[in-house]
Amino acid sequence: MYKILKTEGRAKRAEFQTVHGTIQTPVFMNVATVAAIKGAVSTQDLEGIKNQVVLCNTYHLHLRPGDDNVYRLGGLHKFMSCNKPILTDSGGFQVFSLAKTRKIKEEGVYFHSHINGHKIFMGPEESMRIQSHLGSTIAMAFDECPSARADHEYVKMSVDRTTRWLHRCKNEMDRLNALPYTVNPNQMLFGINQGAIFDDIRIEHAKVIREMGLDGYAVGGLAVGESHEEMYHVLEEVVPYLPQDKPTYLMGVGTPANILEAVERGVDFFDCVYPSRNGRHGHVYTNRGKMNLLNAQFALDDRPIEEGCNCPACSRYSRAYIRHLLKSGEMLGMRLCVLHNLYFYNNMMEEIRNALDNGNFAAYKKAKLEGMEEFDKLSKGPSSDIAKNWRKG
Amino acid sequence: MYKILKTEGRAKRAEFQTVHGTIQTPVFMNVATVAAIKGAVSTQDLEGIKNQVVLCNTYHLHLRPGDDNVYRLGGLHKFMSCNKPILTDSGGFQVFSLAKTRKIKEEGVYFHSHINGHKIFMGPEESMRIQSHLGSTIAMAFDECPSARADHEYVKMSVDRTTRWLHRCKNEMDRLNALPYTVNPNQMLFGINQGAIFDDIRIEHAKVIREMGLDGYAVGGLAVGESHEEMYHVLEEVVPYLPQDKPTYLMGVGTPANILEAVERGVDFFDCVYPSRNGRHGHVYTNRGKMNLLNAQFALDDRPIEEGCNCPACSRYSRAYIRHLLKSGEMLGMRLCVLHNLYFYNNMMEEIRNALDNGNFAAYKKAKLEGMEEFDKLSKGPSSDIAKNWRKG
Repeated sequence: MYKILKTEGRAKRAEFQTVHGTIQTPVFMNVATVAAIKGAVSTQDLEGIKNQVVLCNTYHLHLRPGDDNVYRLGGLHKFMSCNKPILTDSGGFQVFSLAKTRKIKEEGVYFHSHINGHKIFMGPEESMRIQSHLGSTIAMAFDECPSARADHEYVKMSVDRTTRWLHRCKNEMDRLNALPYTVNPNQMLFGINQGAIFDDIRIEHAKVIREMGLDGYAVGGLAVGESHEEMYHVLEEVVPYLPQDKPTYLMGVGTPANILEAVERGVDFFDCVYPSRNGRHGHVYTNRGKMNLLNAQFALDDRPIEEGCNCPACSRYSRAYIRHLLKSGEMLGMRLCVLHNLYFYNNMMEEIRNALDNGNFAAYKKAKLEGMEEFDKLSKGPSSDIAKNWRKG
Repeated sequence: MYKILKTEGRAKRAEFQTVHGTIQTPVFMNVATVAAIKGAVSTQDLEGIKNQVVLCNTYHLHLRPGDDNVYRLGGLHKFMSCNKPILTDSGGFQVFSLAKTRKIKEEGVYFHSHINGHKIFMGPEESMRIQSHLGSTIAMAFDECPSARADHEYVKMSVDRTTRWLHRCKNEMDRLNALPYTVNPNQMLFGINQGAIFDDIRIEHAKVIREMGLDGYAVGGLAVGESHEEMYHVLEEVVPYLPQDKPTYLMGVGTPANILEAVERGVDFFDCVYPSRNGRHGHVYTNRGKMNLLNAQFALDDRPIEEGCNCPACSRYSRAYIRHLLKSGEMLGMRLCVLHNLYFYNNMMEEIRNALDNGNFAAYKKAKLEGMEEFDKLSKGPSSDIAKNWRKG
């Protein structure tokens, strides 16, 4: 199912077959928290911005509209009219970051809904059942994501429990996939490596979970407060211990530079809310760096966000127009910025794949990083409040 | 420029040539208050929902981004990337409905900006200059829109002043169109009939302004508090006194039923915020009546808003999905409802034109009105708060 087409150093160029289509990697998954990309972007729009995979959040969908309702409506693909692979997270990360008064026990986590305060229990089996209801292409294992500041003793204890939870996830998913009326009986399971920034725990954990023959492996618990250098170090240490013949997914990362560095270290799946969240604030990515479209300097600028860009925003609208929309609080301004940013990310992944195909990834990476430093000063402007109401996931 | 193709009673089927393309009438103009349709709908989207004409608000654009800036950016068509006719209102209606502490004098109106409180003066010449800066296809005359409850004496005095203002508008527009560097030297001017619900004032005013040889004539000051029956009565009385060989525009109207009744009474241009405003609240139009998508009954309804509808929402998404988006506060829910509602209105105008072409408008109107009564009870449900933040224009 996973076939490496080319390598350059540790960087992998591969393709990954799923029941919902073949994914060309490295790939950036576009985040559709509650089965919709924030910023008024639909699954139809995704077809015009080089999107390959959508990521939805299990925790949010469990609370609203309810995974049982999505199941009755035929699963996530039908519900959101998506004809591409969908990855669902386990819900674990949101339980730890959003939910109130959580208690972690061997059986799972007790917590209160951030929407209505209702008591909820979620353990490995519950997470698998919810994801099976959703019928995603790839399900993620239920894990604990310890704080970047947690001590060695706590992290060791937590990771051992996460390993026990992973076995329970695998057993439950095997059982669910074999049931009649399962939305996607070919649902795949990715395991998650944890261990905060402790090399010994990370490596030991990788050695244990790689023996389980899962469909893919993620590196979790990064981009949660540690420095970029610590993140790159962990990737250098742990990725070699994960199976090379399976996808390697760095969860929740990150900036364009983070992605380039991680590809070089062997990662080929990514996801992050940056392009959509920044877009809603009028912060847009270009090959010369990030720009804050709210800056006054763009008021009479009739150029597109990036000259030569083929996204739906740049193909037709000017910086001046989009700035006016953002200043006026018009949703259309956010939509155009989000479409541009997602296109920028998805297009960068295509550039990365082409560079790997042509054996010049190192040169491509160097040139791309140098280019993106040019505008860095411009992105220091004051940020806007317009997206506050929409900042939920 | 205006050619009647067919009539049925007083109803007119015509086409109207402009420098930005030919308009088939009867037509519904889609409201893009600040040069954008509220609900994240772009000029590109308008091409897929049978839109013919866009209406922009002079008052809003004067305040932000400033008509001088729009002029420097090449006019509204270039600014918002619109390749269709654009009509701009005069700013008068917003001055009277939004601005604080206004004072009406012979020379024009003194008022304070609703955005920052700045003192502003707007008279006929100022309105023409702003609209000339914007470069719209059709400019509207600057008028006073008296309250539906104003007495006969006040309305008579106001309408006489509006007539004097109309002469000043025409002179100023002639002067502006002849200047070098005018964005649209072929800008057209529509006059506006006023008179509240007083037949004698309305008819006398119509007789005066029809002699001025303007490009079109609007009936203003309706849909501001009077009953539907009073509105239909005014149309019956006054439309026969307006030139039949010019477009007749009923400003700010209305429901699908209002439009059908007004077409029958000889009106062929319309505009209204209902489809976009209702869409943002999850209220959608169908041939069986209006539905409130927030109602619980749609939670598991996998049908499109309207079966057989070819709009971008119905072509792909279910009531259950759109309801979920609205309940979650996702902008995409509002966008899909606004796209559907605008399509419903624009498509109804096409049906009206086809019926007039085929000589069966009366039968069409009767069937359409009967059909739309079916769901009336469903639309009585509680309305949502989600669009409150967006209710600005």
